[in-house]
Amino acid sequence: MSVPLFVSERSKPQMTAQPLSVGCLIFERMDQIDFTGPFEVLSRMPDTTIQVIGKERTPVRDVQGFRLSPDVSIAEVELFDVLLVPGGYGQQMLMHDEEVLKLIRDNVQNKRLLFSVCTGALLCGAAGVLAGRQITTHWSARNLMPYYGAVLADARVVVDGNIITAAGVTAGLDAALVLVALLRGDAAAQEIQLAIEYAPNPIFQSGTPENAPAEVFKNFKQKYEPIGTAREAEAIRYAANDTSTRIHLADTKDKSC
Amino acid sequence: MSVPLFVSERSKPQMTAQPLSVGCLIFERMDQIDFTGPFEVLSRMPDTTIQVIGKERTPVRDVQGFRLSPDVSIAEVELFDVLLVPGGYGQQMLMHDEEVLKLIRDNVQNKRLLFSVCTGALLCGAAGVLAGRQITTHWSARNLMPYYGAVLADARVVVDGNIITAAGVTAGLDAALVLVALLRGDAAAQEIQLAIEYAPNPIFQSGTPENAPAEVFKNFKQKYEPIGTAREAEAIRYAANDTSTRIHLADTKDKSC
Repeated sequence: MSVPLFVSERSKPQMTAQPLSVGCLIFERMDQIDFTGPFEVLSRMPDTTIQVIGKERTPVRDVQGFRLSPDVSIAEVELFDVLLVPGGYGQQMLMHDEEVLKLIRDNVQNKRLLFSVCTGALLCGAAGVLAGRQITTHWSARNLMPYYGAVLADARVVVDGNIITAAGVTAGLDAALVLVALLRGDAAAQEIQLAIEYAPNPIFQSGTPENAPAEVFKNFKQKYEPIGTAREAEAIRYAANDTSTRIHLADTKDKSC
Repeated sequence: MSVPLFVSERSKPQMTAQPLSVGCLIFERMDQIDFTGPFEVLSRMPDTTIQVIGKERTPVRDVQGFRLSPDVSIAEVELFDVLLVPGGYGQQMLMHDEEVLKLIRDNVQNKRLLFSVCTGALLCGAAGVLAGRQITTHWSARNLMPYYGAVLADARVVVDGNIITAAGVTAGLDAALVLVALLRGDAAAQEIQLAIEYAPNPIFQSGTPENAPAEVFKNFKQKYEPIGTAREAEAIRYAANDTSTRIHLADTKDKSC
């Protein structure tokens, strides 16, 4: 996956001088940087208010135990110009949570932006908003997306109309900069990038299955198996109840992971 | 700044099979990703316990308003195998906080690891542990480090004995992967990198003063001026009271920012 950005033929989000609201969903056993990465960027977007949304107002713990505190509960909010949906193992507990799914669905149906990071895409899929949309997600969940009717694009950041998706975890940083560039112009994004010294330079090339050493990939796959199996069962269940996705499943050729 | 990693001639941290403890300092008006970036990596290091440390146990807000919760207060902790010191505007309020400075000093003097991210290096400087040590920091604070007796190295991640420093903000991710590789071996770091799909691919090259557009750099500098001035005054004050750093000041050639 070497393309930084794929933009579909649907109208992309337009630059605006209006104030913007960003809502960031957090939940138990999420992957914290799916949220804190984009927060770092979007909270610095000019003329923007950003709110952290929980199921309740009580703190949640990320999958590694870090405690995050919401500003508001879902019941207290309506639409956001941008709704951020992170992923992580805890996404699995929300796949039938109608309150969460409705939050996502309402934002998309009202033509606001949906910004999914990592396996947040599975939640968006369960909300039914990805049918026919070009998207990306964590490499380990790519094979599941067609069950939700989504069409995989081979890029770290994908923009398809009002739905912006990032690949796994740290891709949220790259996607957030794309979003700022779209909504506020390139210079605004570049200034944030300079402020946060985002000139990444990892000592290893091991961030994707294609460039990770074979043994490293094998070890990760082994640990990932239980959650992968659970996610697959859920995706199959979703597709079985949703006739609109069947044609996409028959078409799909992507077999990554 | 194109070198990903500089390692000094001092003995570098050794690989170990022992369980490891990591303590992460958080404070009011910090830059949250200076901590959440490394947390993402270090919390996945094999056989490691990680704790979030506040001045008190009450939550703090990062400079953009995100609420972070400590697990323990400084009074409740002693030494850690790795102590993470993040930066951000709020560092300025702690430059004379003897409790925080002692936490840092004790860890270094007891030959444990100190891991500074961004302007966390200013706090480490104020603790008096950087004299004669090769380090890096956020590009905007590089010119201040000689006041603390530190010697600038031109890399995104610098390892000098038991002190590991990252450049600005997002460099904490790169440095944390280096730290895991040193302590647990390359494969452990590579597996974490794969898990968090860290194959960064920003659409712009604007993360350093050298590659940001001139206008973008100028705008940032203007906004940065008040905190930059305050930090410089503090650095001058420190050096005036610390005769050991004077020789380094006379020697320094680095004029970046």
